[in-house]
Amino acid sequence: MPGNTFGHSFRITTWGESHGKALGVVVDGVPAGLPLEPQMIQKELDRRRPGQSQVSTPRSEADSVEILSGIFEGKTTGTPISMMVWNKDARSSSYDNIKDLARPGHADYPYMKKYGIRDYRGGGRSSARETIGRVAAGAIAKEILARFGIEIVAHVIALGTVSARPMPLDAIRENLEKTPVRCADLEAAEKMLKEVEAAREEHDSIGGVVEIIATGVPAGIGEPVFDKLDADIAKAMMSIGAVKAVEIGAGYEASRMKGSQMNDPFVMEDAMVATRTNNAGGILGGLSTGMPIICRTTVKPTPSISQPQQTVDMKEMKETEINIKGRHDPTIPPRMVPVAEAMMALVIVDHMIRSGHIHPDSLLK
Amino acid sequence: MPGNTFGHSFRITTWGESHGKALGVVVDGVPAGLPLEPQMIQKELDRRRPGQSQVSTPRSEADSVEILSGIFEGKTTGTPISMMVWNKDARSSSYDNIKDLARPGHADYPYMKKYGIRDYRGGGRSSARETIGRVAAGAIAKEILARFGIEIVAHVIALGTVSARPMPLDAIRENLEKTPVRCADLEAAEKMLKEVEAAREEHDSIGGVVEIIATGVPAGIGEPVFDKLDADIAKAMMSIGAVKAVEIGAGYEASRMKGSQMNDPFVMEDAMVATRTNNAGGILGGLSTGMPIICRTTVKPTPSISQPQQTVDMKEMKETEINIKGRHDPTIPPRMVPVAEAMMALVIVDHMIRSGHIHPDSLLK
Amino acid sequence: MPGNTFGHSFRITTWGESHGKALGVVVDGVPAGLPLEPQMIQKELDRRRPGQSQVSTPRSEADSVEILSGIFEGKTTGTPISMMVWNKDARSSSYDNIKDLARPGHADYPYMKKYGIRDYRGGGRSSARETIGRVAAGAIAKEILARFGIEIVAHVIALGTVSARPMPLDAIRENLEKTPVRCADLEAAEKMLKEVEAAREEHDSIGGVVEIIATGVPAGIGEPVFDKLDADIAKAMMSIGAVKAVEIGAGYEASRMKGSQMNDPFVMEDAMVATRTNNAGGILGGLSTGMPIICRTTVKPTPSISQPQQTVDMKEMKETEINIKGRHDPTIPPRMVPVAEAMMALVIVDHMIRSGHIHPDSLLK
Amino acid sequence: MPGNTFGHSFRITTWGESHGKALGVVVDGVPAGLPLEPQMIQKELDRRRPGQSQVSTPRSEADSVEILSGIFEGKTTGTPISMMVWNKDARSSSYDNIKDLARPGHADYPYMKKYGIRDYRGGGRSSARETIGRVAAGAIAKEILARFGIEIVAHVIALGTVSARPMPLDAIRENLEKTPVRCADLEAAEKMLKEVEAAREEHDSIGGVVEIIATGVPAGIGEPVFDKLDADIAKAMMSIGAVKAVEIGAGYEASRMKGSQMNDPFVMEDAMVATRTNNAGGILGGLSTGMPIICRTTVKPTPSISQPQQTVDMKEMKETEINIKGRHDPTIPPRMVPVAEAMMALVIVDHMIRSGHIHPDSLLK
Repeated sequence: MPGNTFGHSFRITTWGESHGKALGVVVDGVPAGLPLEPQMIQKELDRRRPGQSQVSTPRSEADSVEILSGIFEGKTTGTPISMMVWNKDARSSSYDNIKDLARPGHADYPYMKKYGIRDYRGGGRSSARETIGRVAAGAIAKEILARFGIEIVAHVIALGTVSARPMPLDAIRENLEKTPVRCADLEAAEKMLKEVEAAREEHDSIGGVVEIIATGVPAGIGEPVFDKLDADIAKAMMSIGAVKAVEIGAGYEASRMKGSQMNDPFVMEDAMVATRTNNAGGILGGLSTGMPIICRTTVKPTPSISQPQQTVDMKEMKETEINIKGRHDPTIPPRMVPVAEAMMALVIVDHMIRSGHIHPDSLLK
Repeated sequence: MPGNTFGHSFRITTWGESHGKALGVVVDGVPAGLPLEPQMIQKELDRRRPGQSQVSTPRSEADSVEILSGIFEGKTTGTPISMMVWNKDARSSSYDNIKDLARPGHADYPYMKKYGIRDYRGGGRSSARETIGRVAAGAIAKEILARFGIEIVAHVIALGTVSARPMPLDAIRENLEKTPVRCADLEAAEKMLKEVEAAREEHDSIGGVVEIIATGVPAGIGEPVFDKLDADIAKAMMSIGAVKAVEIGAGYEASRMKGSQMNDPFVMEDAMVATRTNNAGGILGGLSTGMPIICRTTVKPTPSISQPQQTVDMKEMKETEINIKGRHDPTIPPRMVPVAEAMMALVIVDHMIRSGHIHPDSLLK
Repeated sequence: MPGNTFGHSFRITTWGESHGKALGVVVDGVPAGLPLEPQMIQKELDRRRPGQSQVSTPRSEADSVEILSGIFEGKTTGTPISMMVWNKDARSSSYDNIKDLARPGHADYPYMKKYGIRDYRGGGRSSARETIGRVAAGAIAKEILARFGIEIVAHVIALGTVSARPMPLDAIRENLEKTPVRCADLEAAEKMLKEVEAAREEHDSIGGVVEIIATGVPAGIGEPVFDKLDADIAKAMMSIGAVKAVEIGAGYEASRMKGSQMNDPFVMEDAMVATRTNNAGGILGGLSTGMPIICRTTVKPTPSISQPQQTVDMKEMKETEINIKGRHDPTIPPRMVPVAEAMMALVIVDHMIRSGHIHPDSLLK
Repeated sequence: MPGNTFGHSFRITTWGESHGKALGVVVDGVPAGLPLEPQMIQKELDRRRPGQSQVSTPRSEADSVEILSGIFEGKTTGTPISMMVWNKDARSSSYDNIKDLARPGHADYPYMKKYGIRDYRGGGRSSARETIGRVAAGAIAKEILARFGIEIVAHVIALGTVSARPMPLDAIRENLEKTPVRCADLEAAEKMLKEVEAAREEHDSIGGVVEIIATGVPAGIGEPVFDKLDADIAKAMMSIGAVKAVEIGAGYEASRMKGSQMNDPFVMEDAMVATRTNNAGGILGGLSTGMPIICRTTVKPTPSISQPQQTVDMKEMKETEINIKGRHDPTIPPRMVPVAEAMMALVIVDHMIRSGHIHPDSLLK
């Protein structure tokens, strides 16, 4: 059973390779009656596209979206929405000389073992360009969620050795797009930019942490005992290339807390049940509590670096050295922000439909 | 779409509540021809059963497994295997006085919001007793994997404020069951035991970290781009109650590493491709690399603690205080070890079948 | 990927073999708040149990159901409902002498090819006893549907060479259980009984046709373009052993009709859209029209007959003769009536939830 | 949960509307290493395209396929294959005056009830143009199956009142494409053509029967007890618009046969197990027997006819008359032949992978 489909009630299937003709996504399960313009998709794709700033790869792609189906007179009809982007600035020749070499930190070797053949140009299917389909589909999910008062915001909270101070949600919203590193703590952002620059000069790369926050999610979504909301979020995030850890709420810190500290006391707030703290990150027993959902993902440093590395020639089956040319991002988290938002939106809209909060057929009902 | 089923090619469905008549699991997709005796299941259930040591709840259950189908003349037949355990020591009355109160850190409140009704006795379906089905199914998965040279071992590497030193796999195997905390570093285990004891005396609880290692997994299993091996592991682990974070390989540390440090150099070893380090934790691009798969999960402190806590009465919709009596584990990680092993085994056997490494119908082929 | 699960939003997994310890089903996706007593399940099982009349096998089983989970204080809780029946009158020895012979018309040979091993006693998993789980689950589905004004009735419309006259729904309801052949045309029923008796005396068996009618289904359920309502009904019915054809509405006759005859004119009835005729059988484009859903299934004659038959010895790989002893139904349709009703109920309740007509979590909402 | 995806191990998702920009399909689960040229797809699309003969609609579409992903250096890579066809001759204006009228025999009314909005041009998503994606995907499935010695042939065996004589497989292969009605009995074909012509002159339409034969399928594919091979074939066929009945083997005739007639005696043939007759249609207990798989589908007459029909205005909610202009096929079965072959191929390749007969990852292994 192949794995290019995500979601159950709101289901996306992505396709396409880094240097193929095009990349795209089919989104099935979008309820009818949602006004949808290409611009709503494009604005999210613009946030992830290459060449957008000095912290991203210089590959120049407009990544202009075409919507091919599922819309009639400006509204969704409940039928599948097919969206695609043509590849334009695909310089494949730079990959010819490394086609048999396993790039360290990349999927070349296991792909070869699995399929016996691979499109080596730019990583083929394992390229981060695959996330175009996720972001396009996520843009639709966000539009739907917005109608139900749900907002999703991601931001960079650590890059290299720099950590941001905790910021209130308003400041995150306001500062998010002010700097190319997408860190709401502008002082930290300044330092992060320097660290990115230093890494680039050293022909190296750095990692970081992206935090995703979802507000307005009603209590009770998620499906015990396996399709728990946090389980599906963990899968969604870990399915993004380069993510090596996922935390919910107190996350990693929970291991050193006592029950009396970790437990969030229940309180009444405006005649509604809430919790005083939110160590749970908005999820208990796999179900949303009504509090903000908080997730953090650790992103490894970009594996493509412009320095010689030890590796093997998969054809000759012998050790050798590799020098990757190509065009790389010196760090991934800033461009991963819209991807992480998309994945969170996809999980939440899927579960909102699954648990009856959003009508599966039509928003007009 | 409900969520009590896990896996695709090797698929389990668990059922049952903490204080219901019984709990069980149906395992579909077990290839024919596997010799299977109840004792193979029972030995794993014994590792998770309550009352096994001073660090676990005193609830006394033999959790004796019955296999009801799918076996003929001592071998699996390819048909579903139904297994169950009767509940015996279910003292439901202790829950009567808190039936309308939302226990902090527990799923009571969101369950009530979702279903409008709940079996409040011992957490009902959201009880850790649900993992009986997982462990029973995982025991079958482990038996199958063992025939393909795959071994899965989990152990506690942190409990409360105590962290274990890194240990070689041999020592982990040898020491794992020597102490009730299931920590291979016996010195650390000693300290952990004391910390558990202290927590119990303070009517409090502590968290910890469980590491799961899978060796012998061939390169190339996992399904791009959503059903990646690490994505499915993350989901599997996060679906276990009390888990708040999942890391693969370098995990959380990857955020502070440089690409040149994080990338594992490929080398030839015994005419096979390997990596010199294993920061990837055995997974690149969502596919296994052939190196050991390393996963760490952070477990929160047991939410049931015997001290007064602030909460709300869900019926009266007003704030109040709760005193949980019942019988609780002072810490979860030691008993979570067999559950985490089971979930890892389930993910790997599922992917081994999905990618053609294990025949879906029969081991006799 | 194994195949013992049916449905998406209302999902059943059956398990068990003809001569194993027990048979059962886990039903996942039952909304919370449904009052459910064992008697509601038992009454349907009693309609399918062996030994109920002269037209059924003399194997004597009470098939007494136990509900093991998912119910609290007489109501469903939204968690999986596990139900089982113990096998009691299992006389396995009669199968010893034919364990290597492929019974004609039975699944012995392909099971052996698929799994390399099989429980040969009474057909093992391929026995009609497997439908116990379907009927138990279907009983819950029917209870839910009844609350939404949906009724499902099946009846025998042909047995051997006897065909029943068309009968109005009221007469079908009234006469259905009056004779052991479950034919509403009592005159035809008389003749059918004779034909069954004749077949038994000749050590032979006869086939027939079961019609299933669902009334009260609202317009618009079904999921284009693959999970159409008629597609899922066809699968559900064809998954019942012995069914060789499935028709919807005019069915087989449609091939000889003209468009002007086949098309059902739309009319207004009580301010609602209806059709004057119902050649569509209540389904257009895979979606319900609001008219009664009409399905007919052709059932082959029981393959187990007490006369010598030509076959092969699968172990020796040579031709031989087989004499099946055991205890057989001389004809299947009468006992298939509750099974067909169950499958129709399962498909409809699944699609009612999928399309938002029934709340997935709770009937209390 | 939406329904535009079919299959598990070989999974297709179709998208697009009759008068939208384009239609297409994403095929996930194609093993790596299959040589694939657009011409292999195009030749099947040419068999289903409109305007190909006097028995099909005059809408003129080249339906020229573009393959956008999943191929590298002429071979499949194991990644999703995205294929599309642009709509060119879409004359939407002819539908403006009937946009609120429910065309009898069409899905307009239930679509409106389900979604509250619909693309009324040419049936939108419920148009037969949707089958372009099925045929394109089926072409890949057929290529794979051919490598395993499996051949799939469909042909028209009845059209209107004309039935073809039974023909041997060789004659079917040879004569299939000799006449536009795709009937292998050329005498019957002659009469069928006249009946089509007469129907067109009467502004009416006729139905028919398509038989699909699959040879070379090994014994033992199919998944008990719900995903039986015949159950999945029934679903696949019934999911094609206009199909009202599906039969396997003796099918409808089985109801009047005795067990002693229906049962196919097992024999040894060339040291292999076979059956002397094939009333089972190649399937027992939901598993293939190794004999040819035989399926027949009844196709209703085209619902679009150029004569006034009684209907309702869905906006005004009152009765009225409809006159459908557009361009219609006078009969569907001839153009359904490649669609039925595609669906059979999709089911079989899916089950071949599921049961381990075809490697899920790669044909190179």
